[in-house]
Amino acid sequence: MMDYTEINDFLKSNLDQSLAELSRLCAQPSVAAQNLGMQECAELVAEMLRKRNFTVEIMPTEGAPVVFAEQDGKTDKTLLFYNHYDVQPPEPLDEWYTPPFEPAIRNGKMYARGVSDDKGHIVSRLHAIDAILATAGELPCKIKFVIEGEEETSSVHLHDFIQVHKEKLAADACIWEFGGVDHREVPIQYLGMRGICYVELSVRTAAIDAHSGLGGSIFPNAAWRLIWALRYIKGTDERIRIPGHYDDVVPPSERDLQLVEALPEVADELKTRYGVEHFLKGLTGGIDLRLAEIFEPTCTICGFNAGYQGEGAKTVLPGYASAKVDFRLVPNQRPENVLISLRNFLDEGGFEDIEITYLGGEPPARTDPDDPFVDLVVRTAEPVYGVPMQIAPMIGGSGPNYPFIHTLNLPVATAGVGYPGSQAHAPNENMRIDLYLKGAEHITRIIREFGNSDL
Amino acid sequence: MMDYTEINDFLKSNLDQSLAELSRLCAQPSVAAQNLGMQECAELVAEMLRKRNFTVEIMPTEGAPVVFAEQDGKTDKTLLFYNHYDVQPPEPLDEWYTPPFEPAIRNGKMYARGVSDDKGHIVSRLHAIDAILATAGELPCKIKFVIEGEEETSSVHLHDFIQVHKEKLAADACIWEFGGVDHREVPIQYLGMRGICYVELSVRTAAIDAHSGLGGSIFPNAAWRLIWALRYIKGTDERIRIPGHYDDVVPPSERDLQLVEALPEVADELKTRYGVEHFLKGLTGGIDLRLAEIFEPTCTICGFNAGYQGEGAKTVLPGYASAKVDFRLVPNQRPENVLISLRNFLDEGGFEDIEITYLGGEPPARTDPDDPFVDLVVRTAEPVYGVPMQIAPMIGGSGPNYPFIHTLNLPVATAGVGYPGSQAHAPNENMRIDLYLKGAEHITRIIREFGNSDL
Repeated sequence: MMDYTEINDFLKSNLDQSLAELSRLCAQPSVAAQNLGMQECAELVAEMLRKRNFTVEIMPTEGAPVVFAEQDGKTDKTLLFYNHYDVQPPEPLDEWYTPPFEPAIRNGKMYARGVSDDKGHIVSRLHAIDAILATAGELPCKIKFVIEGEEETSSVHLHDFIQVHKEKLAADACIWEFGGVDHREVPIQYLGMRGICYVELSVRTAAIDAHSGLGGSIFPNAAWRLIWALRYIKGTDERIRIPGHYDDVVPPSERDLQLVEALPEVADELKTRYGVEHFLKGLTGGIDLRLAEIFEPTCTICGFNAGYQGEGAKTVLPGYASAKVDFRLVPNQRPENVLISLRNFLDEGGFEDIEITYLGGEPPARTDPDDPFVDLVVRTAEPVYGVPMQIAPMIGGSGPNYPFIHTLNLPVATAGVGYPGSQAHAPNENMRIDLYLKGAEHITRIIREFGNSDL
Repeated sequence: MMDYTEINDFLKSNLDQSLAELSRLCAQPSVAAQNLGMQECAELVAEMLRKRNFTVEIMPTEGAPVVFAEQDGKTDKTLLFYNHYDVQPPEPLDEWYTPPFEPAIRNGKMYARGVSDDKGHIVSRLHAIDAILATAGELPCKIKFVIEGEEETSSVHLHDFIQVHKEKLAADACIWEFGGVDHREVPIQYLGMRGICYVELSVRTAAIDAHSGLGGSIFPNAAWRLIWALRYIKGTDERIRIPGHYDDVVPPSERDLQLVEALPEVADELKTRYGVEHFLKGLTGGIDLRLAEIFEPTCTICGFNAGYQGEGAKTVLPGYASAKVDFRLVPNQRPENVLISLRNFLDEGGFEDIEITYLGGEPPARTDPDDPFVDLVVRTAEPVYGVPMQIAPMIGGSGPNYPFIHTLNLPVATAGVGYPGSQAHAPNENMRIDLYLKGAEHITRIIREFGNSDL
């Protein structure tokens, strides 16, 4: 059993400096969607890493650069941290109590755009590394950072980047960009993400809109065409009708069922938070609801746009309509297969006129819950949080974990500073300072145990 | 055969004064949708009528006032003119070559918002009355004007107004607010209009939008609900599936078929103007296309709004969706019946969650093509236009003709200054001055023949 007294003293006594550094990072806008401050932020992150003796490269991509850093340690075993320095757009600005790029501390929380997603995670990891270097003089293992700048815009260049720099990124395990506690203050280990295939379906039936009194009985209507095509894809039974869509679906294992069974009930919380009266398919709660939430493929209409949408009546027949459609995928579905099957299915149904535009995707990917690195991360959480960490074998959302798991062949685990009230992606994004300290402490334990392990 | 030399001389030699009066009327904005200048315009119209010795009342409604005017003539037979002084909003302003409320004459046309729809019709009728009064000293029959201020906002108060003032509005025949020539310069008699039932369908499935990664497999999606409900109402066969929807439909008569057969081919012109590649239901042109255009009930989606509609991808699950839906009705369908049947049909299909908001409607109405007044209006057009007037038994659009035909029991015929290039409802609305003169001359003939007829 390693001693953490000295390390914890360091973390506490240097907390204010670390928060000041985080504040400086959050004050630098880095909005990927608006291409705002990206290079400046990459350079600031690089500077922060160099200060800790990391060898740093700002590596170009076709989009925002990736900050890559490495530092040798006592052993050659390598721990890779994946993070991102880009943030969501801060809008709507008038809903922020303090400006999004002027970090402010109130009631034990720091408020700023990006403070939780993902800059707090970055700086808490540096704070942990500082503690280790200050107390031991060197790292117990090799550490690499891959800090990208396009996570909030679907990490479109990351897969290629990882493929090309496979050797440089070689490691033995990976800590993901997020992690934290749930609404009960219980730390959760998130072990996989659904994939996604996001498309825009659109159709043009006329060069210009027509008067509905003239065209109603004789002109094709773009809105009707798109409605019929969508209903052809999925009906009220919620089953996706594309042939073969479920063929590659791997059902949850016995171990998955055990893990999901152990997770807390979410039904009432979801109903209250979202104002939903009932769930789909007769689900009412319990393990069935939690399994459906993460282990089922979905087809979600995220938006639909056609014709007149203002006040009152306008008698117009739309010549153009479009819909945003998000397919969530579970192992072993693939976004590229969905694209092909969807095109064929629409064509077979007489919907050759519906155009498909691919707006991005990720394959699903999971880390084995019984991987020894997962055990290490879970085990080291308990002394920090005072309760055992629980394992969620999958989450419903998506992210670029596939190339880490399948190209770099790494077990990927989560550890971090998040909590359900962080308002990531929303106004008044914030981070709890107590969890910042706990997150840093957990990271020191992960690094030290990893350095001394046989993994 | 009456002599028109003196009348035509008057119309021509006083044309400039009449156009100056029209210009003054067009310079007065009267945008019903924006409640802009309505009272001022009603007073200006009243003043113009009083100048011709009409007894005028500005009669309040719950919306814009109606200008009612009457003047006795040689006989008690009464001709009623229905017009409207309100105009469409002028936006988008930057597409006008000259400002919409600063009338300008170029290339034989007057340009202004409302010059064709409907102020040119009003003043050309006054110009005709001036010619008759100047040459004969009195009107050959009684004339009434009903000039409303809400035609462009669905004439929502006109039905009640006509019901309440049935005695005051009593007449023997009615000239409608519009009329004119087609693209071949052939005057057309439009004898009926489809009805309309315009609704907004909406559904709320959650108080707030959810993340699609979280809610996709467990939350009801408002966009999907509305798409399924709409597909339930109409499929790709274009047949409206509401039970009984076609029960009251009166098919076109032999006489209707003859009249539609005689009308010009429209297929190529429609395809070119709207950039449409093909028509619905395999229609390619000829009488079948023209019959479908006007004698069939329709269900048109005029707009659909749900979730994210901006650039790129946003992974959101919409809690609210709405659609504007326009049912065109043919005799003897009724908008109030459609509302009831639609509610029942949605409920039976499990779509109790879809809310229906009624945004306005008109029943369909037609005048018998063999009515003697129609014959009078058609007959008097030929010497003015040099070619026989053709009869279109119906048009695809809708208007408030029902209470004139069924409450006041009047034959309703069209005569006016319109032409296909008038850009009514669009920027650079205009009126051809040659057709203004012809329209006025046609009105003088209608009034004089009507005064001397047995109708």
